[in-house]
Amino acid sequence: MASKYKTMEARKAKDSFITMNELVLPNDTNTFGDLMGGKLMYWMDIAAYLSASKHCNSACMTASVDNLSFKSPIRLGNVICIEACVTRAFNSSMEVHLKVWNQNMITQSRELSNEAFFTFVGLDENKQPKKVPEVIPETEEEKKYYAGA
Amino acid sequence: MASKYKTMEARKAKDSFITMNELVLPNDTNTFGDLMGGKLMYWMDIAAYLSASKHCNSACMTASVDNLSFKSPIRLGNVICIEACVTRAFNSSMEVHLKVWNQNMITQSRELSNEAFFTFVGLDENKQPKKVPEVIPETEEEKKYYAGA
Amino acid sequence: MASKYKTMEARKAKDSFITMNELVLPNDTNTFGDLMGGKLMYWMDIAAYLSASKHCNSACMTASVDNLSFKSPIRLGNVICIEACVTRAFNSSMEVHLKVWNQNMITQSRELSNEAFFTFVGLDENKQPKKVPEVIPETEEEKKYYAGA
Amino acid sequence: MASKYKTMEARKAKDSFITMNELVLPNDTNTFGDLMGGKLMYWMDIAAYLSASKHCNSACMTASVDNLSFKSPIRLGNVICIEACVTRAFNSSMEVHLKVWNQNMITQSRELSNEAFFTFVGLDENKQPKKVPEVIPETEEEKKYYAGA
Amino acid sequence: MASKYKTMEARKAKDSFITMNELVLPNDTNTFGDLMGGKLMYWMDIAAYLSASKHCNSACMTASVDNLSFKSPIRLGNVICIEACVTRAFNSSMEVHLKVWNQNMITQSRELSNEAFFTFVGLDENKQPKKVPEVIPETEEEKKYYAGA
Amino acid sequence: MASKYKTMEARKAKDSFITMNELVLPNDTNTFGDLMGGKLMYWMDIAAYLSASKHCNSACMTASVDNLSFKSPIRLGNVICIEACVTRAFNSSMEVHLKVWNQNMITQSRELSNEAFFTFVGLDENKQPKKVPEVIPETEEEKKYYAGA
Repeated sequence: MASKYKTMEARKAKDSFITMNELVLPNDTNTFGDLMGGKLMYWMDIAAYLSASKHCNSACMTASVDNLSFKSPIRLGNVICIEACVTRAFNSSMEVHLKVWNQNMITQSRELSNEAFFTFVGLDENKQPKKVPEVIPETEEEKKYYAGA
Repeated sequence: MASKYKTMEARKAKDSFITMNELVLPNDTNTFGDLMGGKLMYWMDIAAYLSASKHCNSACMTASVDNLSFKSPIRLGNVICIEACVTRAFNSSMEVHLKVWNQNMITQSRELSNEAFFTFVGLDENKQPKKVPEVIPETEEEKKYYAGA
Repeated sequence: MASKYKTMEARKAKDSFITMNELVLPNDTNTFGDLMGGKLMYWMDIAAYLSASKHCNSACMTASVDNLSFKSPIRLGNVICIEACVTRAFNSSMEVHLKVWNQNMITQSRELSNEAFFTFVGLDENKQPKKVPEVIPETEEEKKYYAGA
Repeated sequence: MASKYKTMEARKAKDSFITMNELVLPNDTNTFGDLMGGKLMYWMDIAAYLSASKHCNSACMTASVDNLSFKSPIRLGNVICIEACVTRAFNSSMEVHLKVWNQNMITQSRELSNEAFFTFVGLDENKQPKKVPEVIPETEEEKKYYAGA
Repeated sequence: MASKYKTMEARKAKDSFITMNELVLPNDTNTFGDLMGGKLMYWMDIAAYLSASKHCNSACMTASVDNLSFKSPIRLGNVICIEACVTRAFNSSMEVHLKVWNQNMITQSRELSNEAFFTFVGLDENKQPKKVPEVIPETEEEKKYYAGA
Repeated sequence: MASKYKTMEARKAKDSFITMNELVLPNDTNTFGDLMGGKLMYWMDIAAYLSASKHCNSACMTASVDNLSFKSPIRLGNVICIEACVTRAFNSSMEVHLKVWNQNMITQSRELSNEAFFTFVGLDENKQPKKVPEVIPETEEEKKYYAGA
């Protein structure tokens, strides 16, 4: 089946790394003033899309989301920093690892709030799955995620 | 630990059942005109919140999301129908089962697009976890989800 | 003039019934923390659109809104449940009856907040008015609305 | 009952006149690229709120909306101009007359798209109805709406 | 270069005058409940667009924004009134002068919050710069801005 | 006047560096499908706020925006990357330098779209101006912006 794809050269994991900072506004919060889980997933999906799309040079779409857990609440006025990186790719699929940091600008605290894996499928201009480049892991962390994918 | 919670009577699964219909608007879609996964998760989280909150008569927050996969694309102008129901509860946790239907009003098609489990924690007025009612499953499907929780 | 329309079989009122649940978020409220009337009308219009479009299997547009009154305020954090159903149809017009329920998840209260009639026009793929199916009322309530249209 | 209200001096209708211009963006439109009725009602409600609030110097809330009809479609990219003015007041109620102009900047067309009456209730700082100033109509049009209220 | 443009007759400054009123909602504010500067610039850009587009009867795009300063904070629940007017035009460029009024409906205060100049470029249907009409200043203020452009 | 401020230690310019990536969605664009200038300024203001707030460990508000020009159009579906860094501080003021990159994920192009300076004022918990740390420039570019402030 590989024959229907144009082969692309493998790419380093870090080349798909992106960060996204978002300010938690009133409409993003529940009645306690904490960020709603769904709004965080909305931002994570966009961050993962940016990373996957940077890796494969094309449009792509969310295929699946791995188990995801929400620890401590994130307050109104805090700043979410999402880091996303493609950790492994296979045929048309890309696994994107996400770290969500909950930042309070005033206390300068910055704690890891969530980690997750989203899988995306690369799409060609006819919206058909296309072959995506393989990933070259370099750091220990990248190798760990690559192996665990 | 149960002593710190006020006990509530068990409730039928179907009493927490809710439906939510949402029209897919331009800003919800990617450049192909398909619903972005993140926007769907945003709506699923609100639907699950409504169901969990109906079950436990209090505020609650998202604790985790189970594996979630996205099948066929959902088009701009389609209508998403989300059905949510609490399938099992334990201490302060509630497991909410969600079905997402992708509906095209013109062709009258209606297909199951996603299924997922979200877990919520019930909160008292001081934002502390509170004991939530147990679930009484009645139908075969409710019993299956109850057993599998 | 009927000749320019393709005839469609009459449909039961209940087949166009839909429900929509919406959580009242900060941006939907005025400075007292009550839902703004305009946001409620925005949701009612979408609910009516979904019901009308389900009845006639096509796009449609709002033609008119009947007298509409707002009773008690709806609080931030409450959940609006809108029920919509086509009660009568004539040529290209559909009359949609809406009930808006104001729900407080914590106290489990659920009170009827508004009732209204919206009229929609069914549109064919060239955006011209098209003949829509007639309505078959079955329950007493459906018959009352049908007669009163 | 008048005794519980602080009396305010009557005001000219024109002193409550306001205009609001809004650009029709993609998310405001249906799949044909026409403004959805509900979004227009959302804007009309805000315009009416601004006018009523200017008349009575306080917060206020929507009490009712009169029969409202939608004529020709309003296109994506057009500009809606809403004019609002309090035409009559009685105890705590204000009747606001609205004119909606559909403007195409390129062809310079400007046509009256809708007219409507919204009724608002003036509220004091405890969210209780408060006595609002009477209206002094001056022009022929203002007198007509005053008499017809 | 003038030869590639179709000449349009000069227009009075006041013919491009528009006003826009916007209610400051929770999501427009920072954690102190004051309007964020960026949201105000967003509204100013739309107001300037409406005025420029009214002057040149075509689409147009923002080319530049002059020095802009923010004085006193604008509170949640206040109403922003933006007045925009094209003060000078040259080839395909239009200079738009904006005044932003910060209004408190309850105290009836209305103070000038910001003034700014935005420059827009008129575009033809192929998105190429097009010749725009010259401006005829009439009042003293219009002449001052015309001379200072 | 310095006596009313608690002195804070000087900080490196790079410690306030942040990046923000945003996907251009339909509602952010004009009728040609290009990003509206006002939406870009909205994002730039949030990015500058995040950087200033990171520098001074407190809330802050936009004081002014320097001359800002928009070069080539930014397309729907592109990704805006905003880099922000505090380049100089004096008493309660911080000058934030912003670079806006226009990125096309598919062609992998990345071009500098805008540069700008925003000035913010640090605020204490009573919303009064507070003394902010001075800036230590290290790189050539940081020194250039520091000198030019």
